[in-house]
Amino acid sequence: MIKAGIIGATGYAGGELVRILTGHKDVEIQWFGSRSYIGKEYASVYQNMFQIVDAACMDDNMEELAEQVDVIFTATPQGFCASMMNENILSKVKIIDLSADYRIKDVATYEKWYGIEHKSPQFIEEAVYGLCEVNREDVKNARLVANPGCYTTCSILTAYPLAKEGLIDMSTLIIDAKSGTSGAGRGAKVPNLFCEVNENMKAYGVATHRHTPEIEEQLGYASGEKVVLNFTPHLVPMNRGILATEYAKLTKETTYKEVKAIYDKYYANEKFVRVLDRDIYPETKWVEGSNYADIGFKIDSRTGRIIMMGAIDNLVKGAAGQAVQNMNLMFGLKESEGLELVPMFP
Amino acid sequence: MIKAGIIGATGYAGGELVRILTGHKDVEIQWFGSRSYIGKEYASVYQNMFQIVDAACMDDNMEELAEQVDVIFTATPQGFCASMMNENILSKVKIIDLSADYRIKDVATYEKWYGIEHKSPQFIEEAVYGLCEVNREDVKNARLVANPGCYTTCSILTAYPLAKEGLIDMSTLIIDAKSGTSGAGRGAKVPNLFCEVNENMKAYGVATHRHTPEIEEQLGYASGEKVVLNFTPHLVPMNRGILATEYAKLTKETTYKEVKAIYDKYYANEKFVRVLDRDIYPETKWVEGSNYADIGFKIDSRTGRIIMMGAIDNLVKGAAGQAVQNMNLMFGLKESEGLELVPMFP
Amino acid sequence: MIKAGIIGATGYAGGELVRILTGHKDVEIQWFGSRSYIGKEYASVYQNMFQIVDAACMDDNMEELAEQVDVIFTATPQGFCASMMNENILSKVKIIDLSADYRIKDVATYEKWYGIEHKSPQFIEEAVYGLCEVNREDVKNARLVANPGCYTTCSILTAYPLAKEGLIDMSTLIIDAKSGTSGAGRGAKVPNLFCEVNENMKAYGVATHRHTPEIEEQLGYASGEKVVLNFTPHLVPMNRGILATEYAKLTKETTYKEVKAIYDKYYANEKFVRVLDRDIYPETKWVEGSNYADIGFKIDSRTGRIIMMGAIDNLVKGAAGQAVQNMNLMFGLKESEGLELVPMFP
Amino acid sequence: MIKAGIIGATGYAGGELVRILTGHKDVEIQWFGSRSYIGKEYASVYQNMFQIVDAACMDDNMEELAEQVDVIFTATPQGFCASMMNENILSKVKIIDLSADYRIKDVATYEKWYGIEHKSPQFIEEAVYGLCEVNREDVKNARLVANPGCYTTCSILTAYPLAKEGLIDMSTLIIDAKSGTSGAGRGAKVPNLFCEVNENMKAYGVATHRHTPEIEEQLGYASGEKVVLNFTPHLVPMNRGILATEYAKLTKETTYKEVKAIYDKYYANEKFVRVLDRDIYPETKWVEGSNYADIGFKIDSRTGRIIMMGAIDNLVKGAAGQAVQNMNLMFGLKESEGLELVPMFP
Repeated sequence: MIKAGIIGATGYAGGELVRILTGHKDVEIQWFGSRSYIGKEYASVYQNMFQIVDAACMDDNMEELAEQVDVIFTATPQGFCASMMNENILSKVKIIDLSADYRIKDVATYEKWYGIEHKSPQFIEEAVYGLCEVNREDVKNARLVANPGCYTTCSILTAYPLAKEGLIDMSTLIIDAKSGTSGAGRGAKVPNLFCEVNENMKAYGVATHRHTPEIEEQLGYASGEKVVLNFTPHLVPMNRGILATEYAKLTKETTYKEVKAIYDKYYANEKFVRVLDRDIYPETKWVEGSNYADIGFKIDSRTGRIIMMGAIDNLVKGAAGQAVQNMNLMFGLKESEGLELVPMFP
Repeated sequence: MIKAGIIGATGYAGGELVRILTGHKDVEIQWFGSRSYIGKEYASVYQNMFQIVDAACMDDNMEELAEQVDVIFTATPQGFCASMMNENILSKVKIIDLSADYRIKDVATYEKWYGIEHKSPQFIEEAVYGLCEVNREDVKNARLVANPGCYTTCSILTAYPLAKEGLIDMSTLIIDAKSGTSGAGRGAKVPNLFCEVNENMKAYGVATHRHTPEIEEQLGYASGEKVVLNFTPHLVPMNRGILATEYAKLTKETTYKEVKAIYDKYYANEKFVRVLDRDIYPETKWVEGSNYADIGFKIDSRTGRIIMMGAIDNLVKGAAGQAVQNMNLMFGLKESEGLELVPMFP
Repeated sequence: MIKAGIIGATGYAGGELVRILTGHKDVEIQWFGSRSYIGKEYASVYQNMFQIVDAACMDDNMEELAEQVDVIFTATPQGFCASMMNENILSKVKIIDLSADYRIKDVATYEKWYGIEHKSPQFIEEAVYGLCEVNREDVKNARLVANPGCYTTCSILTAYPLAKEGLIDMSTLIIDAKSGTSGAGRGAKVPNLFCEVNENMKAYGVATHRHTPEIEEQLGYASGEKVVLNFTPHLVPMNRGILATEYAKLTKETTYKEVKAIYDKYYANEKFVRVLDRDIYPETKWVEGSNYADIGFKIDSRTGRIIMMGAIDNLVKGAAGQAVQNMNLMFGLKESEGLELVPMFP
Repeated sequence: MIKAGIIGATGYAGGELVRILTGHKDVEIQWFGSRSYIGKEYASVYQNMFQIVDAACMDDNMEELAEQVDVIFTATPQGFCASMMNENILSKVKIIDLSADYRIKDVATYEKWYGIEHKSPQFIEEAVYGLCEVNREDVKNARLVANPGCYTTCSILTAYPLAKEGLIDMSTLIIDAKSGTSGAGRGAKVPNLFCEVNENMKAYGVATHRHTPEIEEQLGYASGEKVVLNFTPHLVPMNRGILATEYAKLTKETTYKEVKAIYDKYYANEKFVRVLDRDIYPETKWVEGSNYADIGFKIDSRTGRIIMMGAIDNLVKGAAGQAVQNMNLMFGLKESEGLELVPMFP
């Protein structure tokens, strides 16, 4: 039985980790860390867990936690994990960090986009970017996994095969992404109130969103060139789900079948990536509650562009589900263990 | 491995049966019946099932189906199951009917409220009303289970212990219920369009809703008297969830502790009924996607009434989940097998 | 031109006052009071008002404001208006208080339910309860109007004619009310976040909601007896709208026509109360954005009860619209001036 | 008093025409045409109009209608208006067609994208494309106005000044648009059911949506070159609102101020187009219920692109409001008459 600790267990991603790990036959959660609710019953913070979780919230003492568990998930604000990390902890326990602290290899880029100093840059090199479908083998041996962001997971998986195979002109890539509101977290802010979000839609973080350099870095590795792109996130009046609509010029004339073959080359054996049939486009609802990423595409011969579309549940494949997938790989379990979540419809 | 057939597999309740049974380790779905989609891939009707279900929709030939499976779920319009039923079928296969055909013991009451003739009244007596928490032992031996309605499950469970123990004056019982829109089914009707339901709320079927006699009958058994009550359903702009707010005069002065003790007497050992802590009232979101019924209550000494509140997911405990719970009992499986669904939040 | 000042102009009710008064041909808003946003452009707080309102937010100095305007609307937290009120202010300016401070005649009841001390009880007697359809003549001559609460407006109007005519047994009256989330205000609180409210429904303030004594007092005047009732509010995932479903025993056997005649007696000439046709029940969407209260009812001969249903837009007839209706009466304008708002659908 | 007839008065756009014209002091609606509801009270189809509209639905006999009214609005399916049009009608009455029949000058393009034969191509030349801010003078003298599409109005207005001034490379223009569900109409179809749309988001009509050639034609006139672009519409779980996010390469290095000056050049005097302040991006909620188009933009120096964003209420500026704006111009009324609708928030 793997003993797990969660720091930041009362955020939405943390809550989703609890939901998923509760159903994982090889894991026991030992520590529900939540600085805001120390001493409070976890089930009183998330009443859905009443009679399921019987534990009080703990602090975020990673040193102590490292003594007690086999794996720590940090679902914490940017900077927290980096500020706590040290060799002692890493020598005792595996870390899966759901924040951005170890996602970006270039510390200057991290510090510029996030506006904070990185407190433990010495571990960045070692950290494995935990996009399982891309870095599976590295994840298996990692001590420290940087769990990808929600927008980034969706954005990268959607374009990855075509970037890798040189089929799209990376300098033309534009990602227009739409997210449910759980991505904004559980903090009490006016813009996230029901009446502000409901019956409304807007772009935000235009040309400045922090997931941009993460996407650029990963798609840069795939394409073998420096990538600079536009990424525009939008807030949608729904709880869960990310839809990424991506546009790029094709580098050569190509057919539906050729593109489909490339997607299949990378994803046909991937349980959690589903390349949809011709003229079927992903809908966020079709992956809700599950670890799937659904992908569809359309070639527009009029403009010479391809439109690629991807959908995930931002709290599952975009956060907690992918973290558990990483954990499974790190501990030699079946990759899909605990993740056989059938999407819920409606 | 239990072989299951579903008739009406492409309605919302049918789809939820597929979702739950897909995760049930002892069951294999053999037959996805759907008169409207015969020959069509099931996963093309419910794209969430892509790469999960690989089967085409079948017709609704119960005779043939009875040869092939161990249990048939009928998630069909009123009248269908009754019109198909015969001794031959019942001798070969267990039937769990999600429609109302066998829920009401008095055929005249059924025919009056549903406005159709009952085609096989001879099986009504034998049918067991599948509210597991109330009729568990009978369900175990049943050939034919009448799976309770969504509103009724919620309404009955919420009041049952107090009705049984004579704590409430049944002649004063009023049930004001609110339901998500999946309860209205997947039929293409103007009143169920997004723009008609969203940002809207209304009562419907006032004093005439068909679940009324079903609630009255069951609470009549519990209280030992003829029950006539008001039941008012409302449509709420959400997909899933039923909330029942019930009002009744207390038959004597009583305390929170006494009432709590009575609820605990009936439900403390019930996995799927959670009696909430003092001053916590159920929210539909806390049970979403799960088989739980959450119950809370408040005594109002000013008026001498008790307000009882219950919440379920109408598609799970109110339909497919309860049907699987019944199946588990009928086949001697662990009652919660395949139903360890943690409520999803948010 | 009537000069108006609004204190609390950046709350949802205050914002709605601005929307309505902006379209009122006889009114000019002189003062956009908002303690939280002093000095900030009003249109930057409510971007919908960009290029419509060109003014900065002011403080809440009622003394100074009284010098400048003809009427002050206080859309402020409980206690504020009472703490500011004095004879000097009242001698200079008309006050329409959207808070509860002057709604309840018995100060002890106010203090008990609201849990605060009333700072100017000497004005309670003088204050007119501004339910225009009931107290029209008194409003015309008032210096100080207590604008009714949202739930109360809907609850009272729905039952008023039958209470007045003795057709319902007041001791059996139960009000089950459902409200959109704007009623909870614009404060940043976790329970009002989009992800907490969306896809969710719950009761709250069960047997303790502060609108209870207000409803009881007014229906007491109507029925000529002390009224004690159950009022249960529920939170619904929509922005606007209140639906009240009310249950009571009829005091005698009666027909649809008789009840309809009573409703018509009180409301046939009321522009803003629409008694719907037989078997049509109110939907919140049908009154959205308008000052209408829609009412329907159903007699249930099985139980001897009548089910009365009413719907309003909580921000219009339940707050700002009614306040303007009161202002029109107080200044001798056409009662519907500025309120000819056609409900918006969808 | 202008006498108006509406054909297609029971669709969502038709209903919005009724709402707006009801508040227009110079117009009287004489004819509520609705093939589906002939003889039925209009207010029974749209209960929000109860006691506001007292008329029964009529047929769609344009010949007869032309005798009775001064202006006909056709809010009808593609092909209807073209099939009815003739010189006799046009000589008697002004026509504002909300369908696409006369929007596209090249009949072959129309027939290819819409898949139907155009029945009266002889009037296409004469028809004025009723985007008031662009074609104001032509509209004033028109007999036949082609009211622009909802997506197109938003898409064109957002890019128009930059296209006109040559600031953006038209071959790089990509429009990613998001619409509320009222754009899909009131037809009873499964994909538009509440449970299918709610908590969901998807692209549709990818690379094939019919508004594409309309946008291309109009932006072609503006830029003076043939435009071929990508337009991708998405369905959003909200009733009203369109948000267009548009991407294009700048043709030269430019500053915020320069771009702002260009927008102001075209829109500073336009009542219904609001160019937002720096770093404020449009939200659909800020224009809801109103005739405004809100526009914001961001220059991304990293990629050399500009991101332009526009928001409208699809039923107002995107349909009925713009139609009334056109009518006002055609009849020499104040352009904003009846359109002083303050956006409703929340």
